[in-house]
Amino acid sequence: MSAASQARRRRKPDDLRIVAFEKGQHVSYSACGIPYLVAGDVADPDDLVARTPAQFRDLGIDLRLGSEVVGISLDDRSVTVRPTGGDPYTEPFDQLVIATGGVPARPDVPGAGAAGIHGVQTLEDGIRLLSFLEDHQPRRAVVVGAGYIGLEMAEAMIRRGLQVALIDAADQPMRTLDPDMATLVADALRGLGVDLRLSCPLEGFDTAGDRVTGVRTAEGVLPADIVILGLGTRPNSGLAADAGIAVGASGGITVDRRLRTSAEGVWAAGDCVEVLHLVSQRPTAIALGTHANKQGRAAGINIGGGYATFPGVVGTAVSKICAYEVARTGLSTAEAAAAGFATFSTVTESTTRAGYFPGALPITTKIIAERTTGRLLGAQIVGQEGAAKRIDALAVALWHGMTVEEMTGLDLSYAPPFAPVWDPVLIAARKAAEQLATLKP
Amino acid sequence: MSAASQARRRRKPDDLRIVAFEKGQHVSYSACGIPYLVAGDVADPDDLVARTPAQFRDLGIDLRLGSEVVGISLDDRSVTVRPTGGDPYTEPFDQLVIATGGVPARPDVPGAGAAGIHGVQTLEDGIRLLSFLEDHQPRRAVVVGAGYIGLEMAEAMIRRGLQVALIDAADQPMRTLDPDMATLVADALRGLGVDLRLSCPLEGFDTAGDRVTGVRTAEGVLPADIVILGLGTRPNSGLAADAGIAVGASGGITVDRRLRTSAEGVWAAGDCVEVLHLVSQRPTAIALGTHANKQGRAAGINIGGGYATFPGVVGTAVSKICAYEVARTGLSTAEAAAAGFATFSTVTESTTRAGYFPGALPITTKIIAERTTGRLLGAQIVGQEGAAKRIDALAVALWHGMTVEEMTGLDLSYAPPFAPVWDPVLIAARKAAEQLATLKP
Repeated sequence: MSAASQARRRRKPDDLRIVAFEKGQHVSYSACGIPYLVAGDVADPDDLVARTPAQFRDLGIDLRLGSEVVGISLDDRSVTVRPTGGDPYTEPFDQLVIATGGVPARPDVPGAGAAGIHGVQTLEDGIRLLSFLEDHQPRRAVVVGAGYIGLEMAEAMIRRGLQVALIDAADQPMRTLDPDMATLVADALRGLGVDLRLSCPLEGFDTAGDRVTGVRTAEGVLPADIVILGLGTRPNSGLAADAGIAVGASGGITVDRRLRTSAEGVWAAGDCVEVLHLVSQRPTAIALGTHANKQGRAAGINIGGGYATFPGVVGTAVSKICAYEVARTGLSTAEAAAAGFATFSTVTESTTRAGYFPGALPITTKIIAERTTGRLLGAQIVGQEGAAKRIDALAVALWHGMTVEEMTGLDLSYAPPFAPVWDPVLIAARKAAEQLATLKP
Repeated sequence: MSAASQARRRRKPDDLRIVAFEKGQHVSYSACGIPYLVAGDVADPDDLVARTPAQFRDLGIDLRLGSEVVGISLDDRSVTVRPTGGDPYTEPFDQLVIATGGVPARPDVPGAGAAGIHGVQTLEDGIRLLSFLEDHQPRRAVVVGAGYIGLEMAEAMIRRGLQVALIDAADQPMRTLDPDMATLVADALRGLGVDLRLSCPLEGFDTAGDRVTGVRTAEGVLPADIVILGLGTRPNSGLAADAGIAVGASGGITVDRRLRTSAEGVWAAGDCVEVLHLVSQRPTAIALGTHANKQGRAAGINIGGGYATFPGVVGTAVSKICAYEVARTGLSTAEAAAAGFATFSTVTESTTRAGYFPGALPITTKIIAERTTGRLLGAQIVGQEGAAKRIDALAVALWHGMTVEEMTGLDLSYAPPFAPVWDPVLIAARKAAEQLATLKP
């Protein structure tokens, strides 16, 4: 819908007809807000909607809800649409934007179809989950998958007063963090009362009638009145692939910096594409609303006759679990090794404000840098209020390939309510620069 | 003391003798913390001390308190010291670090010497002010000067329950902000109950006995039981100038990136020096603890035989006034014009978190950019909790000479508790890029 809006801003209805197909009943909502809807922070599903179907129609966008596109024909330059309860039809196009998003991973284990097992990908998922919570008043929740969504949903369940177990097949939560930083997150989760079980793969679900009653794991059965799946997503690129449009090794549709696919006049944007990781210099698929939004905007501007690009990402992400803030950017140590970098890293403890200032809270900052040059490759932060957004300064430094030594000179803001006299980012850079000096011959 | 500590880390007492002279009785304290000591946020003056005299002496640093250096002889390579209550003597040096800090501006008006008129430069000033508040229980405070310190002291007085008037000769508070952004600060101050009087120069003080009773201004006399001066500082470079060491037009001692002055073996660091402003490319004097600390460290590393630099500043600063946060970096519109830039600017309103997320607070972001290239020249933020530290991402972008168009692609962190799907910094960059497009022929 970002692409549609931007194209419409530049080309009026008499110049460009725009038809948008959506399988479900909601468009232009914040999927990232669903955990907060479920937690009760957001009162109404409508609050997550940025722009309603009526508003899009007022812009002269022919939005068709309940209309799944099931095929693309590049030869005919048309899509095949299957409307809910109606007959399939084809719709021609001159320009096509594929914005099919991601496909949530669903476990292929016994009982996976039982009632009470919920995904949280779409607004409809969120509304369904809220109804289940209200109708059934579950007491025990099991969250499967300890990534961002799993953690946010574990928090939501805790805050609703449920007993929460969180399981993951990996030996750490948040696989995008280094193990030592993930340990801080694991400790925080346990401190919040989450029964965190790592290296604990899902084996199946116990059911009674059509309802889930437990989660089977290598460690036995965890009783569950409700199960929430947070197993991540993969790019929903099947429709594009079937049409002969190039899809990369990441599973995302291949696009250039203007969001053009391999097919003339076909664009793609959002969780269905792969983008250039500016540090690894490799294509990567990262499902994140802010990227999707920027990409949609750029595609729409380009279709509208302008010029806009999405140059790539450095892998920035941030999350909150109750009072804890977690952020990362760039490559983890493992990702850097996979991309061929020899690295070193430093971990520094500091405070979010001057140590003497009320509300100074702990912040741990990890820096991963190249072993010979000291070039910043990645950074991770775990802390409390005021910690996480510091990742942005690191993300911009990373964008410019700064070395840790160069970063020690950065003119970051200082006043006692906001930082120690050396901001935690600067302390981290300084420690890394000192460490680098000892590594050199 | 940063320089002394760093030099000592690299050169042990048998290799390098270090003598440090301090006029007062306190070293290594956070002067920036004094307003919070006065406000009651910090319980004890000792809390502001990073390292005590005893700790420095334990490091083998011969720290001499109550010892003012009153002369430097480059020919003799010695300094003349006047100890409190003792006879002057000379002390030889091989290497000298001048870290004389700033001289607070003091008004040359009738009554300026009265009791109850307080500066807040040194820890001793802060302790004296606290005693006055406790001994005399003043009800009405007048703060002279609406810069960072004046505003922080106005807040401190408000929070202690005093009636506060704040006067400034300029027509806006915080002259480092553009007038439109300063208006937001003025509104915030008035909302807090501060009687803010702009374009209102100080004319003198009324006194009874030796005590101040009022502040005379063009608008009449403001009754005052206590007066706090926040008129800024200038570099304390007189000692260096008298010795024939080069001092720049800003009034600060001229140093190179290693903090070397014009005299062989003489270094300078802190508020007494001038540094390169990386945007204006001009020398500038900025009194700020974080710069002073970095400079001292670099000078100490260099004296210790290492290599460290202070490459310059981009003019980042941040301040808090009750619930309001104010930040700036780079050049203001007026500063940019003075440096020869043709500029345009945009002001955007956004929220600190996703609009639907509890605690989403207003943030106003101004961007100043070069008219032809769109290169970022400066940014200013006024908002509430979570607003100000966003200046750091802008400061790093500025450091790298990014254009506003390039900035729209930055991979800044997003999750609903931390930002809207477009971070306010990105919205500001996007608006500026859109504005730039309309300016081009």
